[in-house]
Amino acid sequence: MAGPQDDGLLGGFELNFYNDRMAPLLEIHQQQGAARRATLHLPHAKVETPVFMPVGTAATVKAVPQDVLESLGAQIVLANTYHLYLRPGHEVIRSLGGLHRFMSWPHALLTDSGGYQVFSLSNIRKVTPEGVEFRSHLDGSKHFLSPERSIEIQLALGADVMMAFDECTEYPAEYARAKQSLELTLDWARRSLDYFHAHLHEVPWAVPQGLKPGQFLAGEWPAVNGGPYPVSGAQSSVLNPESAVLSPESRVPSPSLFGIVQGGMYPDLRRESAERLVEMDFDGYAIGGLSVGEPRHLTREVIERTLEFLPKDKPRYVMGVGYPDEIVEYAQLGVDMMDCVLPTRAARHGLLFTSQGRVNIKNKQYAEDPNPPDPACACPVCGRYSRAYLRHLATSGEPLAATLNTIHNLAFYLDTMRRVRDSIRQGPQGNSPPSLNVEMADA
Amino acid sequence: MAGPQDDGLLGGFELNFYNDRMAPLLEIHQQQGAARRATLHLPHAKVETPVFMPVGTAATVKAVPQDVLESLGAQIVLANTYHLYLRPGHEVIRSLGGLHRFMSWPHALLTDSGGYQVFSLSNIRKVTPEGVEFRSHLDGSKHFLSPERSIEIQLALGADVMMAFDECTEYPAEYARAKQSLELTLDWARRSLDYFHAHLHEVPWAVPQGLKPGQFLAGEWPAVNGGPYPVSGAQSSVLNPESAVLSPESRVPSPSLFGIVQGGMYPDLRRESAERLVEMDFDGYAIGGLSVGEPRHLTREVIERTLEFLPKDKPRYVMGVGYPDEIVEYAQLGVDMMDCVLPTRAARHGLLFTSQGRVNIKNKQYAEDPNPPDPACACPVCGRYSRAYLRHLATSGEPLAATLNTIHNLAFYLDTMRRVRDSIRQGPQGNSPPSLNVEMADA
Repeated sequence: MAGPQDDGLLGGFELNFYNDRMAPLLEIHQQQGAARRATLHLPHAKVETPVFMPVGTAATVKAVPQDVLESLGAQIVLANTYHLYLRPGHEVIRSLGGLHRFMSWPHALLTDSGGYQVFSLSNIRKVTPEGVEFRSHLDGSKHFLSPERSIEIQLALGADVMMAFDECTEYPAEYARAKQSLELTLDWARRSLDYFHAHLHEVPWAVPQGLKPGQFLAGEWPAVNGGPYPVSGAQSSVLNPESAVLSPESRVPSPSLFGIVQGGMYPDLRRESAERLVEMDFDGYAIGGLSVGEPRHLTREVIERTLEFLPKDKPRYVMGVGYPDEIVEYAQLGVDMMDCVLPTRAARHGLLFTSQGRVNIKNKQYAEDPNPPDPACACPVCGRYSRAYLRHLATSGEPLAATLNTIHNLAFYLDTMRRVRDSIRQGPQGNSPPSLNVEMADA
Repeated sequence: MAGPQDDGLLGGFELNFYNDRMAPLLEIHQQQGAARRATLHLPHAKVETPVFMPVGTAATVKAVPQDVLESLGAQIVLANTYHLYLRPGHEVIRSLGGLHRFMSWPHALLTDSGGYQVFSLSNIRKVTPEGVEFRSHLDGSKHFLSPERSIEIQLALGADVMMAFDECTEYPAEYARAKQSLELTLDWARRSLDYFHAHLHEVPWAVPQGLKPGQFLAGEWPAVNGGPYPVSGAQSSVLNPESAVLSPESRVPSPSLFGIVQGGMYPDLRRESAERLVEMDFDGYAIGGLSVGEPRHLTREVIERTLEFLPKDKPRYVMGVGYPDEIVEYAQLGVDMMDCVLPTRAARHGLLFTSQGRVNIKNKQYAEDPNPPDPACACPVCGRYSRAYLRHLATSGEPLAATLNTIHNLAFYLDTMRRVRDSIRQGPQGNSPPSLNVEMADA
């Protein structure tokens, strides 16, 4: 279905709004133990969960064209607010119709808040309750990010799912420090939510062509049912549940905002963070501050003990994880969404994830190996190229190495999650998750 | 049709021999002025000429997966013998079944002789009548290349078309120097041809599975007509023209060897070079030593005055040219084959060839330009992405920039040649070549 921005400039590009107005954001189909299989109803796609989200930092999943992502079955891509704010700038992307149009990805998108990158990539000048003053890692220029500013930028990008601005607590962190950081994040969560609710209709794809952002609130709208703006019920807060008549604000699909649980590795702080966020009533909840150097058993423990305090009827997202066996494990705990740079970044260094374990394709042992990277894999790379060829590309520094290795790794991750969903669908009689047998030793 | 090496290790890969045993190497369909439209009957493909051959130096057209090359209609790819000899080594490629299988390109391939790269990339230690001693540009290791060695390496790679080992005469060159270089190249051409004729059946795809190279000459062959080895008539020298019975040597399709005309910018030396090569009876003829810094009118003049002395019934190949308007111009002169790094290399620097002229996509002026790179282009990049997005990718150093820019430029070159062929097909009533209107100014 054509979106409001479909002005024909980019042949064949449609915003492709998903139109199912009465569905909840998360529609749960099956449970198996703590794991659940569900559909996430977003403005631009129905996303089948548990889902792995490839990372497309600068509006591109590095080295992979968008049509290949589609053919691999990528349902939702994560883009980094910090990077896009600095380059090309969120106003440029807004003026081009938002991130979906900018990167020609008419499916679901999620943006992070920029918080993690400000703390990990930039030169921080000053953190105050108001926000963070920092210098760009690109050119040293000075910038300021606050909850309001982060949401403003994310609304300009216009992803389907946006994240509250948080401070990612470092590891290790003393209890007092983790507690103080948590308080800051909770304050910022509240402010993120307030700004989001006041401005959520400013996403570029909510703006009919010819109108400016904001104008739509003045009532310059076409008729609800006859108009060209299909409506998703993803954002239940903009539906009037008392009647079949949609409120004026609901004439376009709305994005969602997720809160982020912090609290370091302290279960009581995680619980407090979760409970106070849940009181604020976000559309979904993320568990942040993991994969920051802590041992893996601690990652699992924090996830498990945080999930207890998150509502079962809303999506749960663990940020920045993990290895293939980890994403299986966390899905079994009841996590719905995960993202990680691992499959893409490792691919660029020649590390392949396969059903036989990890393969460093640059190793001499593959120089004359005519076998596909993973004999059990049905991806286009394993269907066409040999280990010997991939090794040659990688050791020669050929750009095609990054492309082919990334395609395989993403296929492996996406297929792993597909098998997790199938296993939940089949119930206890089917393949139980342990038999998914994700081998993580070196091949 | 499955080739002899189809052992099923790489799913779906077939050597795909083209089976038309009685066709000549070059089957001319139409002439329009000096231009001609023909089919080049090669072991792995029927190639429609005039043809532009993308350069795949290290067994990869940089940044572009093979399936994309297929979808763009690339018919034949050029690979560099010098690079593949140094890395991964021709014996590695031979052991993996040859270059077609190694890079998973079951269509036509051409390899150069390595001569040009030895003189332009390596540290030359000594040129003697015997050959060239040089040091690798990769690691400084010492190597020796001669006509015999070049053909031995090319046979191990197993391209459909191979090139005689030549010295690419530098520009400018004094007459005496050009004459001396020409004599060396003619001597090397003779030796290349002799070695080629003695060993041409050693191409990896000519070796039935289970046999070693060379064994086939001992008569260990399956029946001609019932055997699994389809035969192409491309190499008329291995057919017995007196009868319908194929000689034992012809039971597999054979590669072709082209001679290379040198002679600097001196018409009489070019004539001498052409005539003496033609006496040797190569399968086709290339014009080398161009695009080495000479002014463009001289390139054209040398091509025009060399073509006069090349047989009309054999393929003519101008090496290393050119801009889109040049490949149109030379096709009009009667050139059948061209190759150039320009579309691929320029793409990696952000230079796009379009119907409106050259576009440096990194320019600030494209930062918010929602239009496709070339509004008149039907390639997958122009069908999906905006100038603003391509500019963002290129200025951000994203690997996808090289991939998308290269796909567009190759599509533009391949489409240009398709239009040249169509124009010849339509005859004088149709689009005459000048109306192809290849705009070369900056957009």
